[in-house]
Amino acid sequence: MSAGWFRRRFLPGGPLPAPRPPRPRSSPVPYRRPRFLRGSGSGPGTADAPRRPDVRPVRSPARGRALPWNAGYAEIINAEKSEFNEDQAACGQLCIRRCEFGAEEDQEWLTSCPEEFLTGHYWALFDGHGGPAAAILAANTLHSCLRRQLEAVVEGMVATQPPMHLSGHSICPSDPQFVEEKGIRAEDLVIGALESAFQECDEVIGRELEASGQVGGCTALVAVSLQGKLYVANAGDSRAILVRKDEVRPLSSEFTPETERQRIQQLAFVYPELLAGEFTRLEFPRRLKGDDLGQKVLFRDYHMRGWSYKCVEKSDLKYPLIHGQGRQARLLGTLAVSRGLGDHQLRVLDTNIQLKPFLLSVPQVTVLDVDQLELQEEDVVVMATDGLWDVLSNEQVARLVRSFLPGNREDPHRSQLCSHRSLERGAVTGLFQRTWYLSFGHTRTLERNHLPC
Amino acid sequence: MSAGWFRRRFLPGGPLPAPRPPRPRSSPVPYRRPRFLRGSGSGPGTADAPRRPDVRPVRSPARGRALPWNAGYAEIINAEKSEFNEDQAACGQLCIRRCEFGAEEDQEWLTSCPEEFLTGHYWALFDGHGGPAAAILAANTLHSCLRRQLEAVVEGMVATQPPMHLSGHSICPSDPQFVEEKGIRAEDLVIGALESAFQECDEVIGRELEASGQVGGCTALVAVSLQGKLYVANAGDSRAILVRKDEVRPLSSEFTPETERQRIQQLAFVYPELLAGEFTRLEFPRRLKGDDLGQKVLFRDYHMRGWSYKCVEKSDLKYPLIHGQGRQARLLGTLAVSRGLGDHQLRVLDTNIQLKPFLLSVPQVTVLDVDQLELQEEDVVVMATDGLWDVLSNEQVARLVRSFLPGNREDPHRSQLCSHRSLERGAVTGLFQRTWYLSFGHTRTLERNHLPC
Repeated sequence: MSAGWFRRRFLPGGPLPAPRPPRPRSSPVPYRRPRFLRGSGSGPGTADAPRRPDVRPVRSPARGRALPWNAGYAEIINAEKSEFNEDQAACGQLCIRRCEFGAEEDQEWLTSCPEEFLTGHYWALFDGHGGPAAAILAANTLHSCLRRQLEAVVEGMVATQPPMHLSGHSICPSDPQFVEEKGIRAEDLVIGALESAFQECDEVIGRELEASGQVGGCTALVAVSLQGKLYVANAGDSRAILVRKDEVRPLSSEFTPETERQRIQQLAFVYPELLAGEFTRLEFPRRLKGDDLGQKVLFRDYHMRGWSYKCVEKSDLKYPLIHGQGRQARLLGTLAVSRGLGDHQLRVLDTNIQLKPFLLSVPQVTVLDVDQLELQEEDVVVMATDGLWDVLSNEQVARLVRSFLPGNREDPHRSQLCSHRSLERGAVTGLFQRTWYLSFGHTRTLERNHLPC
Repeated sequence: MSAGWFRRRFLPGGPLPAPRPPRPRSSPVPYRRPRFLRGSGSGPGTADAPRRPDVRPVRSPARGRALPWNAGYAEIINAEKSEFNEDQAACGQLCIRRCEFGAEEDQEWLTSCPEEFLTGHYWALFDGHGGPAAAILAANTLHSCLRRQLEAVVEGMVATQPPMHLSGHSICPSDPQFVEEKGIRAEDLVIGALESAFQECDEVIGRELEASGQVGGCTALVAVSLQGKLYVANAGDSRAILVRKDEVRPLSSEFTPETERQRIQQLAFVYPELLAGEFTRLEFPRRLKGDDLGQKVLFRDYHMRGWSYKCVEKSDLKYPLIHGQGRQARLLGTLAVSRGLGDHQLRVLDTNIQLKPFLLSVPQVTVLDVDQLELQEEDVVVMATDGLWDVLSNEQVARLVRSFLPGNREDPHRSQLCSHRSLERGAVTGLFQRTWYLSFGHTRTLERNHLPC
């Protein structure tokens, strides 16, 4: 992507054309729930219990179905807000082949990989909005993008230190020293691959949505286990935490119009055309009105972490670029998240103002070194969409894990039970939720070794 | 500042005009050392000692001269690198008057303030480059800018909660609730005032340098005590730490081309014109050369925290926007810092490529709540330019403080002695250094109370 592309895409020179409804050129993305939920009931413990009409069923994988690391998954079925459940989840084995760049082709997911060179696992949550299409496409696509990106750099990943040249041939004798001085490690290539995969997936979703005449977007929270490390990549407002005996460690940050205020305001400063004269980029404690004109009111601009006072002018009365507080904060009055996939067609209601230029698809990546931290079976990574975190704090989830897991040490489905249990409260409040529970110590020896070709 | 201003200032539409040497319209900024060093010797303990020719004298305020909080200051005199010592320091009382905006006039520094409404103290270090003028102007000006910015918001600072309207008259009954929900506190107004003061000072320096035909820039590290809090504002690569009995807490981050890589690369992505076709914004482990063409080499772009490989094209052989490693890293091959004041005329050697658009004058501000942390006389804030941190680690400085201060509890000049001592090692290595030592528990009750007008 270049600056020229950005300008051509988002800053047309002449007057803005009226928004065109997308014209379908292919069939809509078929709706489905995650494959690993096939044959599932409403989950352990509640299947035969009398169902209260105000309690939504919690759905989990069928009891006999083993997921990578015996991970636990649960989701609350949506029955009211929209026709379809807009969220999705995915998991599977990640089979990285050693192949020449450009030689890869599509590969069936969740099958054995005879030519694998490096294997890992992958768990993902996609919290959709504006329709289920983007989340379904992300669940169908992101792992393939990631595999492709990892295969493009796998030779560098398995070296003691990533070589300056992917071919491994040094052109300059001190190349290893330059790489060493920059502190570049194999894990930086995985981080780079995750960053590129999210962007590639976003482009695929954009093309597919346009072709099928559909709309929508989704957040993405992904965990990948590879070479003895767990990578957590997040674009959106889902959250992952690590729960240990004496510690609760956040593994992600939430990306919302509030947390990314300065980045978003700065873009509007650089390209005021993006606001089409309809919004003000400045932040005020509330939307200003005529009576405020000429008064000195609290405000802040893109370069400020602190607050100051400014004299209110007429242009300050426009609708704010970021408006509302906490869970109610909205970008351009429309969207509650500032990173994610999709939303290529999203515009402010009844205008031609696009949201996409303000959204980032690039995730923030956190790395857990499983060996160095001596992570054990009792240590659990919990990943969940914002619905869970609206009703349970990190500490409450940690208490649930700590009180449940030790007493069920022998049950291979204990992560599953734990996942199910944490959603029961959400089932009553009626929020959308899905969650992964990953417990360390199952099959992770597999990912630490790569097989020689 | 608007986007239009930025574009007009840095992105001329036609071919770039040749750089003009500034034409002096006023006399040069007079050179001086900090006023509080008047009458100083080479400092305690060394004044009468035989001087080794390879050891530079360490200069401190005269023994009888009390600085705010009995703070300690020391600097090493520059004798070789440039004709003048390019660094500066300042300190003094900060007297905030309650006055109508626009009614203030210049006020003599370090004098009593009969009309003061709120008082605090101020300590600053300015590490200059490219000549001493910018650091001298900053030492002469920044405190006045800060006082002006604080006076403009002081009514909000002394309220229990900053009011939505500076006048204190609510227009909307729920205004206090909006302010409460945003979590806006009095300290946010001080942070905002520091951010604005740095920018205002930068504009003053730009005008003064242009008028006097001088050049140069400087970093700025400032500590301000006000209403029972200590604010540390930093723009550049100086550093402040808090040393306590069992803790060493960083109070600032260093802003260099390396730490601000993504911001700088992104600006070059948005405005490629700023590189005038002479530089590449991409980062590689080393500068590429002809033999690398067509090879896949390690790289990263503005949106990447991780690394990936790319196929080298001809444009990648250009000089990198950020080049070198650690202390050697340079922005556009020229500057080792990415934030600071001045440098309005700075251009890449033999070109018209400006550095100023890549530099930020806005500081990062850290707040220490003196009461809440129960800071005592034994707790010390150490502020120093990079020269000190090149030869002493945070822990080494902390050891020095902890070993020295308790044995000299009765000496009112102990901060001074401690400051002097920490520079003695630097005096041998010959680096430029200046440092402040602020010990809590002296006069801070003064700043916590504001006098009713």
